[in-house]
Amino acid sequence: MMNTLYLPELREMLALDDKAGLQEFCTALHAGRTAEFMEGLTPQEAWKVLLAADRPTREEIFNYLAEEMQIEILEQEDPVELSHLIADLPADDRVDLIKKADPAVMEELLKLVPTKERRDILRLRAYPEGTAGALMTTEVACLSETLTVRAALEEIGREAQEFETIYYIYIVDDEMHLHGLVSARHLVTNLGKPNMLLSDLMVRDLVTVVATDDQETVAEKVADYNFLAIPVVDSEQRLVGIITHDDVIDVLQEEATRDAHLAGAVEPLKESYLATPWLQLTRHRVGWLALLFGGALVTAFAMRSYNENVQQYVWIAWFLPLVISTGGNSGSQSATLMIRALTTKEITPGDWRRVVFRELVIGFLLGGCLAVIGYGVGCLMAPTISDALVLPLTIVLVVTCSTIVGSLLPLLFEHLGFDPALMSTPFIAGISDIVGIVLYMNVARWLL
Amino acid sequence: MMNTLYLPELREMLALDDKAGLQEFCTALHAGRTAEFMEGLTPQEAWKVLLAADRPTREEIFNYLAEEMQIEILEQEDPVELSHLIADLPADDRVDLIKKADPAVMEELLKLVPTKERRDILRLRAYPEGTAGALMTTEVACLSETLTVRAALEEIGREAQEFETIYYIYIVDDEMHLHGLVSARHLVTNLGKPNMLLSDLMVRDLVTVVATDDQETVAEKVADYNFLAIPVVDSEQRLVGIITHDDVIDVLQEEATRDAHLAGAVEPLKESYLATPWLQLTRHRVGWLALLFGGALVTAFAMRSYNENVQQYVWIAWFLPLVISTGGNSGSQSATLMIRALTTKEITPGDWRRVVFRELVIGFLLGGCLAVIGYGVGCLMAPTISDALVLPLTIVLVVTCSTIVGSLLPLLFEHLGFDPALMSTPFIAGISDIVGIVLYMNVARWLL
Repeated sequence: MMNTLYLPELREMLALDDKAGLQEFCTALHAGRTAEFMEGLTPQEAWKVLLAADRPTREEIFNYLAEEMQIEILEQEDPVELSHLIADLPADDRVDLIKKADPAVMEELLKLVPTKERRDILRLRAYPEGTAGALMTTEVACLSETLTVRAALEEIGREAQEFETIYYIYIVDDEMHLHGLVSARHLVTNLGKPNMLLSDLMVRDLVTVVATDDQETVAEKVADYNFLAIPVVDSEQRLVGIITHDDVIDVLQEEATRDAHLAGAVEPLKESYLATPWLQLTRHRVGWLALLFGGALVTAFAMRSYNENVQQYVWIAWFLPLVISTGGNSGSQSATLMIRALTTKEITPGDWRRVVFRELVIGFLLGGCLAVIGYGVGCLMAPTISDALVLPLTIVLVVTCSTIVGSLLPLLFEHLGFDPALMSTPFIAGISDIVGIVLYMNVARWLL
Repeated sequence: MMNTLYLPELREMLALDDKAGLQEFCTALHAGRTAEFMEGLTPQEAWKVLLAADRPTREEIFNYLAEEMQIEILEQEDPVELSHLIADLPADDRVDLIKKADPAVMEELLKLVPTKERRDILRLRAYPEGTAGALMTTEVACLSETLTVRAALEEIGREAQEFETIYYIYIVDDEMHLHGLVSARHLVTNLGKPNMLLSDLMVRDLVTVVATDDQETVAEKVADYNFLAIPVVDSEQRLVGIITHDDVIDVLQEEATRDAHLAGAVEPLKESYLATPWLQLTRHRVGWLALLFGGALVTAFAMRSYNENVQQYVWIAWFLPLVISTGGNSGSQSATLMIRALTTKEITPGDWRRVVFRELVIGFLLGGCLAVIGYGVGCLMAPTISDALVLPLTIVLVVTCSTIVGSLLPLLFEHLGFDPALMSTPFIAGISDIVGIVLYMNVARWLL
């Protein structure tokens, strides 16, 4: 929701070039809220507002602006001022923005960024999307284990501005090999022993991730251990960065969106729905849809092969959509439960025996309940009540088979090293359609 | 995955009652890892291992054990030792556990817990599940604004053990009215000015949540602002607790599971899949399945009313499963995109005009692609190639209608104040089934 409360005042101050007023606006509230109030401005106007603030405030508010606005500002405004902004931005966030903005403009802009920050950007940019390296920041508080508590606090106090978090301080040697961790909490609780060495205080058994690890692994570790941040090391256990809790929250939301899209047979979007051009949105949907359509063509051939049945007992065609949708629904339920349980590591493919047994019992119970209703309606529409028996029998079989298929396929995919989320609801429903037709027609042939 | 590496040693130490060895095991690693290595023990064994550690370590490791094990320990072990453990556990976690364990045993146990902690438990327990109050901890670092930086650091250092986080320090008056926030970062960077007053340092514009707010609101605010913690206030702006980043991560995962289950037409589970008894699992599935089955019965009546069509042109029945599944799939895609975009606040019901326009264009394109394939196969199986025209025409219509229905229903639900996630994939597919049958049969009637 856009907050337009201050828009008229902001525009008036911009028109009057009221620097003091704009500066007051930039500092009065939490930077996140200030950014919210600026959402209704054009990128040009927003940048003018930000220019009234000092560099730290400007950077802070900019960081909370919507990504589209950030990119437009980076692409269009004065490169000299922007190069300062880029130098000030958190090391991980600026790389994300630069990757998304116009490459030609960014190359020009990067030339103006101070060497230290430029090198850092180039290095971080080299990590592929979705890895720990692409997520991390290099602004880590590192100290030597030979420092005392007092010296450490002083050092951190002096340089705090440069670090994304000062709450975890990593203890490294001259080659950046990671030796341990001291939390700010440790330091503060040991204020009474100012000459204690960090080496006596530090925790040595650290949970780390490697820069090439998948971002899902990172999110899991941080979530499991309730960390504020996790250190990222290279293949030689040298500290190359950290990933903080807020980045992990972003990853979790990204992964939830990805899984939700896959479950609906949509190739996951990179941008928001409205920000994705319609042609691209079509591309993200047509692949899965065409694949499912191709699979569903099998149903037409299957139906043709049972043509005699349908011609002879036309009433069984009436119930065809009911039978196949019920199979699809019960299979989707099982697949949904499995995929989520696999994602949250509640089950592994090794649990398949327990799963099959449970789904067999549950499928039988569910099928039984529906069969009773189905038989009631069948009796109304079928020629005789014994003909109508085709329905309950089919329903029990279809629901049981679909729950088994729906639960086993995600487990199989996980076992084979594929993403179980690829077993989308429509995919399972498609398989259940074919199973449903074959079972239904054969039960009908046998009973009628 | 269970880690069984140390199990034989642990069991041997337990058998020999090797207190020193067990104590060494408890302190050598990060508490989270120690807990992992204990997963293979029985709750009785695990508790014996923990008894070898001192109280702070015991509490820390216990907190990382699997919930089922924690509950069994609470229900079965010596109440006196357990009452100490409960007093030591984080205020929010212990309430969650007590809520889940056997109420009769817990009432007895609570009698042994020190008065201060017992009152705290009873107060937190009163907040309904899913609210900020049920999520928060009362162990907040609060100081008066009249303290100096030096005095604040000393105070925090002394009492750090009692607080869930010392990184945000809340400034309150005698009645706990919230006046501001000082971060540990602020304190450390101002070490050089030890006599500065907290009132000169504190941030006054705070983002808060009310204890009765929904947990989703809390998660959104923390995620938007990248907070480490968010203060919880009562209706009179008095500080009653805080919610920390790790609880927010838990909420996000809980909500993602809930949304995934709803998308698959499963009433969300409270426990993990394998921990839910099969009868309860059946109950969580039968409601939606029966509702969808009831809805799908309409298709049988619809089919009967088009009986003439099917009898006259039996080949159109062959393509019925294809037509309705294609409608279901394209509708599910649209619903999935809408529900996720609504959940992440990318769109609001007010955007419906833009959405309809986009989905109309996309549906037409998707339908067009599938229609071409459909016509090809139709020509092979229909009596004449002009008869086969029924198929492409139906597909374009069905896909376009399903995308519109699939995108508008979640927006409508959100607008009416319901949870758009209730518009599950099977639900949308069910509606598409009926739409598909009606369109297909009418196109056939008109063309043939």
